[in-house]
Amino acid sequence: MNKKRGQQSIIFKVPPTLSAAAAIAGPKEGEGLLGNYFDKVMEDNLGGQDSWEKCESYMMEVAITAAVKKTGLLMMDIDFILAGDLLNQLIATNFAMRSLERPFLGLYGACSTMAESMIIGAMMLDGGFATNIVAAVSSHHDAAERQYRFPTELGAQRPLGAQWTVTASGAVVMTQGNNGPKVTAATIGKIVDPGMKDTNAMGPAMAPAAANTMWQHFQDTGRSPDYYDMIYTGDLGSVGKELVIRLIKDKGSDVSSNYEDCGCMIYRESQDAHAGASGCASSAAALCAYLYPQLAAGYLKKILFIGTGSLHSPTSYQQKESIPCVAHAVAIEI
Amino acid sequence: MNKKRGQQSIIFKVPPTLSAAAAIAGPKEGEGLLGNYFDKVMEDNLGGQDSWEKCESYMMEVAITAAVKKTGLLMMDIDFILAGDLLNQLIATNFAMRSLERPFLGLYGACSTMAESMIIGAMMLDGGFATNIVAAVSSHHDAAERQYRFPTELGAQRPLGAQWTVTASGAVVMTQGNNGPKVTAATIGKIVDPGMKDTNAMGPAMAPAAANTMWQHFQDTGRSPDYYDMIYTGDLGSVGKELVIRLIKDKGSDVSSNYEDCGCMIYRESQDAHAGASGCASSAAALCAYLYPQLAAGYLKKILFIGTGSLHSPTSYQQKESIPCVAHAVAIEI
Repeated sequence: MNKKRGQQSIIFKVPPTLSAAAAIAGPKEGEGLLGNYFDKVMEDNLGGQDSWEKCESYMMEVAITAAVKKTGLLMMDIDFILAGDLLNQLIATNFAMRSLERPFLGLYGACSTMAESMIIGAMMLDGGFATNIVAAVSSHHDAAERQYRFPTELGAQRPLGAQWTVTASGAVVMTQGNNGPKVTAATIGKIVDPGMKDTNAMGPAMAPAAANTMWQHFQDTGRSPDYYDMIYTGDLGSVGKELVIRLIKDKGSDVSSNYEDCGCMIYRESQDAHAGASGCASSAAALCAYLYPQLAAGYLKKILFIGTGSLHSPTSYQQKESIPCVAHAVAIEI
Repeated sequence: MNKKRGQQSIIFKVPPTLSAAAAIAGPKEGEGLLGNYFDKVMEDNLGGQDSWEKCESYMMEVAITAAVKKTGLLMMDIDFILAGDLLNQLIATNFAMRSLERPFLGLYGACSTMAESMIIGAMMLDGGFATNIVAAVSSHHDAAERQYRFPTELGAQRPLGAQWTVTASGAVVMTQGNNGPKVTAATIGKIVDPGMKDTNAMGPAMAPAAANTMWQHFQDTGRSPDYYDMIYTGDLGSVGKELVIRLIKDKGSDVSSNYEDCGCMIYRESQDAHAGASGCASSAAALCAYLYPQLAAGYLKKILFIGTGSLHSPTSYQQKESIPCVAHAVAIEI
């Protein structure tokens, strides 16, 4: 029993290793800040498929296959896959799993799903229930827009606070034993709903959940913000990120010098993505394409990776509900 | 390490206990076969809420609160809640979690989600990451119909092979230690897609996945069908159930005398539910309202509970895709 009553954090006894990571992205992401870091950049948003949804499935297959290949394992050595996406009923994930033929658990934490899948994967490994796990997520700009907002063909104008759903998939292979960056601790979030209802301003809606989980992590583990080289949130964008800094400052701590949001690491200013990136693949692309190699090479030694999710749907929005948000934190150290 | 390479099953070292279960249902379910076993039956399909979706959230809150109350624990003693539902972006679950204020992981395995949440919960307990877990799911006939098929007000005719989504929520409290029925083993399923495309015939589509996981469970554990007093699948209905018996017979085993489908245990013949019940709450209602008390009282000693899920969406259906299916098995023994 590693967790004290009332706490939300888990300290792993034998921290599981992240053995490999891979990411594939769309053309806009390929022209962005992480363009050179992706394992593959598609030429268009279809990737040879006949729908955006099928393209998203294809991306997840490619990311998982590439990550597994890097470890030298065969796909049949993967005990379980833990994965999810933003599409209704997780169809991107479910259809990708059809061809991968591994035992599979579907997860939904909106854009926090990468952190969620890594936390469950780490528990399965540290608990002794598996040897090799894949954690993966995907999102697709056009598939997400037509599901959540407007068909992209409509060219509806977006407010400047809006974010751009990342077209990408990221996957990590997690292993019992092995050298490499390790998941040492995790904090599972509670729902925080600040009462916001604007689905074009999800960064600010998620910021209190991100700050809540980040703060809880510090309380539970006794670590201070400067324990980490860097703290990353998933997809708060430029507006939400500033809010997190202020919310943590209100609690008497300062993360302004070692905190960044993955949503600010994907697109260039000139790409007109407004407040930054969003989607399951925002944090996953940053982690799998960029942060993981930095950790593996030792340039980064300790990071706190916080997935952030807006748990609304178009139906809840139409029923005038606010946006419940959640954040899950994963400590990765080498 | 409990799992041998290539196997899909987990044998728990210290089997977690199911300490309590509770279920709430709608009026049609209240008039059905399990009517007297529910903790609460609503007078209508709104339960005092102003939409079906909000009613579904309300049901999950009631089921979880009732299950926790039966254990004598406080809600704050629950370390984590693992839950999901059928609605897009799991809004029934997410909004229920808002008021329960516990750390929470969202899961999506369609109608297999009750088994999925219990499997992850059991791993968290046996792995030493938690002391008390709640696993819960919900579904709502009207909310599901308008999302997946037609608004119920339209009165569209349903083919005789179709099933009726259960309006209910079920929750179990799982605990480290304690007396009571225990989760001794679990089998996590792979996607099985027999290529069927008729979303009004999900029982037959899911039957091969159910048979696959059931058979894998027997292979991995060395248990034969007659090890169990009863084997239950989640929501195959009368058509899918017959298929499972035939598929297992083809493999050289016979489950015809100790196998039932939860979808055949909810409604009476006279209720015109056609091929039986479906939805996340089909297996959850049967487990929480009826099977759990039978186990706790010792009338049933060993059951294999197999959640079954159709992992399609209206979008994948419109894109002419077939229905990928999954099944997860949980062995419960006293």
